Amino acid sequence: MHIALLVHDRFTALDIVGPYEVLSHLPDARVDFVAEQPGPVRTDTGFLAVTADKALHEVPNPDIVVVPGGPGTFDQLKNQALLDWLRAVDATSTWTTSVCSGSLLLGAAGLLRGRRATSHWLALDLLKEFGAEPTGERVVTDGKYVTAAGVSSGIDMGLTLVGRIAGDEHAQAVQLLIEYDPQPPYDAGSPDKAPAHLVEEFRTHSRFTLV
Amino acid sequence: MHIALLVHDRFTALDIVGPYEVLSHLPDARVDFVAEQPGPVRTDTGFLAVTADKALHEVPNPDIVVVPGGPGTFDQLKNQALLDWLRAVDATSTWTTSVCSGSLLLGAAGLLRGRRATSHWLALDLLKEFGAEPTGERVVTDGKYVTAAGVSSGIDMGLTLVGRIAGDEHAQAVQLLIEYDPQPPYDAGSPDKAPAHLVEEFRTHSRFTLV
Repeated sequence: MHIALLVHDRFTALDIVGPYEVLSHLPDARVDFVAEQPGPVRTDTGFLAVTADKALHEVPNPDIVVVPGGPGTFDQLKNQALLDWLRAVDATSTWTTSVCSGSLLLGAAGLLRGRRATSHWLALDLLKEFGAEPTGERVVTDGKYVTAAGVSSGIDMGLTLVGRIAGDEHAQAVQLLIEYDPQPPYDAGSPDKAPAHLVEEFRTHSRFTLV
Repeated sequence: MHIALLVHDRFTALDIVGPYEVLSHLPDARVDFVAEQPGPVRTDTGFLAVTADKALHEVPNPDIVVVPGGPGTFDQLKNQALLDWLRAVDATSTWTTSVCSGSLLLGAAGLLRGRRATSHWLALDLLKEFGAEPTGERVVTDGKYVTAAGVSSGIDMGLTLVGRIAGDEHAQAVQLLIEYDPQPPYDAGSPDKAPAHLVEEFRTHSRFTLV
């Protein structure tokens, strides 16, 4: 099982490290971090760089592709080299997936037309621009397209995929190994649950708009 | 608020990226990934490298220090340069923290004697070797020492810390931003909840022993 994890300038680290931590425990997993240029790629905060070991052209036919989001997503929406790669790998992938605003990249590549999909809650409505049907679910599977909501949701997506690919028991073993028994000290992880004024503040100041 | 995130050979990526993603949203956060040698540091799978921007000696007095675990932890338990650094930064830190088997490193540095602490469930009992009192809780705070259970628990620890440092509302805003509304497709994230035979298999084959 060959897994390609995309990174791009100013991606959000947990978007990709969540799925990585889960999917790398698939049987016979082979994982490549890929970017337009190999080498260190900085996250949105500037505080962290992860290494892309491969350039896009070196990973032409992964079984699974995972596309992260983050503030840098918006600069990539017109990156034809990246969109061409997404279309090319999608032609042979078993699963084409995204976390957070990464679904906008799948959308910009034309891969989500007529499909149900999700994204970070602040970016959800933008999916319509690409002909997708946004839903507020945390993990959305439509055919081979699996999209996840904001940032931390990639862990849930990863476990969902491992269950589909390797069976429930293998997924449960991975969940136990990464001790994923979440106990957040607050219950504010979605716009339906968080204090309304926080949701409003984010909506007012969000730069999640298509330029 | 200056945050030092340690990385060492064969650490587990999510151990450190979980707290990073949360703590980097503290007001005036300044974050340094540190290692004995600056440069790319490979995780336990070999598939991912993150960049340590700073050497240990370049980060002498962070406010918060976070120590990850992973299979590589055990090689570090007698690394005197690393243990010396942990003792030195602990002398002036506001919070000294760990995720997963990272608590064994705090223990080996002599920082957990007589303290309640946690670790990955497979490593929990080993804390006793360092005079700590293991507990099965997900996030344990004893004075300024905050230890978290396995891998994914660092997200919960990060939110707990942000709440203590910047207040409940700020922590809720971070939770909303990273859309941390966990919905794992299985309920197998702790040894109390997972199928007993999976727990037993891990216990039998675990290499989490002190050599």
